[in-house]
Amino acid sequence: MRELTLIGIGTGNPDHLTYQGAAAINVADLILIPRKGSDKADLADLRRQICDRVLTNRSTEIAEFDLPRRDATDPNYRAGVEAWHEAIAAAWTEAVSTRTPTPDHVVLLIWGDPSLYDSALRIAARLEPPPRLRMIPGITAIQALTAAHRIPLNEIGAPFLVTTGRRLRESGWPGEVDTLVVMLDGDCAFQVLREENVTIWWGAYLGMPEERLFSGPLAEIGPKIVAARAAARDRHGWIMDIYLLRRTPPGGLVEERAKV
Amino acid sequence: MRELTLIGIGTGNPDHLTYQGAAAINVADLILIPRKGSDKADLADLRRQICDRVLTNRSTEIAEFDLPRRDATDPNYRAGVEAWHEAIAAAWTEAVSTRTPTPDHVVLLIWGDPSLYDSALRIAARLEPPPRLRMIPGITAIQALTAAHRIPLNEIGAPFLVTTGRRLRESGWPGEVDTLVVMLDGDCAFQVLREENVTIWWGAYLGMPEERLFSGPLAEIGPKIVAARAAARDRHGWIMDIYLLRRTPPGGLVEERAKV
Repeated sequence: MRELTLIGIGTGNPDHLTYQGAAAINVADLILIPRKGSDKADLADLRRQICDRVLTNRSTEIAEFDLPRRDATDPNYRAGVEAWHEAIAAAWTEAVSTRTPTPDHVVLLIWGDPSLYDSALRIAARLEPPPRLRMIPGITAIQALTAAHRIPLNEIGAPFLVTTGRRLRESGWPGEVDTLVVMLDGDCAFQVLREENVTIWWGAYLGMPEERLFSGPLAEIGPKIVAARAAARDRHGWIMDIYLLRRTPPGGLVEERAKV
Repeated sequence: MRELTLIGIGTGNPDHLTYQGAAAINVADLILIPRKGSDKADLADLRRQICDRVLTNRSTEIAEFDLPRRDATDPNYRAGVEAWHEAIAAAWTEAVSTRTPTPDHVVLLIWGDPSLYDSALRIAARLEPPPRLRMIPGITAIQALTAAHRIPLNEIGAPFLVTTGRRLRESGWPGEVDTLVVMLDGDCAFQVLREENVTIWWGAYLGMPEERLFSGPLAEIGPKIVAARAAARDRHGWIMDIYLLRRTPPGGLVEERAKV
């Protein structure tokens, strides 16, 4: 493997793929698709669907590999993650090296964008010898959320913080910002907030036919999200969701540059 | 105008366009392209180039309109922005209503993503009667920056703050985060930072042939960026840039979910 390309494919709508992503798929010798078990089979299906639509290079092959599972019982969290990354790097290497001829250019299709809460870049750093690395940006769940709700991400000229459910649960609302985007939240951490005048915009399965959206005052809509999330997760066997919280009154107007 | 669609087109590489964006272009009756004066003519050219490549609907028309300039001398900043937004809404309305037949579905091609530091959504809220609004997510400068540098946006499980040059200059490094993304910075606000062990990843004209990248220790690379930025701005007549700052040692490992 001389070159590894991480392609952001967006959040579940195959049309989130960019022309740049499609072009990168078509120069690959091998596209690696992870198998995660039946509950997430639809994600592997999405990757195959994308390849079916845009792959025109007849010499590009597609191979599935079993994605190792993280040992969640490891009392040392960091060590557990390191071991897991090492196992994934080994799985990639095996999936590539057992093919004849050995593929030069390998592609991984990354949910969302490869820079945002994703481990592929860190796993790639473990490969020996190190391949040349390329990253193709993709639509993130953040953009998919704001587009679905037709809202701006930031107040005018104001900052926003992107954080995790765990951080929100541990530390509450951070002092200096009025807009939070919360990702990797398996447990509706917004329930710990005691702030008033918070609005939530929540989305799950963004861009997919199953897309669910809720928005409104947190105190009123929060419990509905908790219930809807649990029901959807039961029904589908998995869920990916994200939300934006805005505290009012918003921060003052500072500046804005026209992009229109 | 019954429907207005804001399509994120990415940061200058026409291949940043998504298939969803291309499809939305092709159902438009009218695509509005702003003229900003000769210094930014290449941006209007980019929009035309995108249309040339993906537009197959022969009944879709393209119209240019003169983008009003903001009165930067208005001592009341907020009032100045409001007047400017009102003027742009009027320019859109005029460009649409003077056509025969009046177009139903109008499209605007938005640099980056329509949710991120962009005013089109707020201007659209001024239209009377209000059209149905659609947003198509696009690749942001943030993703273009991390992809160009092949770096993760966040440390593992850690938050990051997206802010503006003005905020950084006024308030310095915010307390709770180790990663900052700085946008709308016309004046290299990173020069005010006194923190040690800060690494900067800077990019300008991301995705375009003129793309410039610098990265390294802020103390060493910062002055080079200041000089290179001024020279590039002189040469091209305009510049769009963005940077990521990371303070080391990074925040601790908290959690990570596999997307690989």
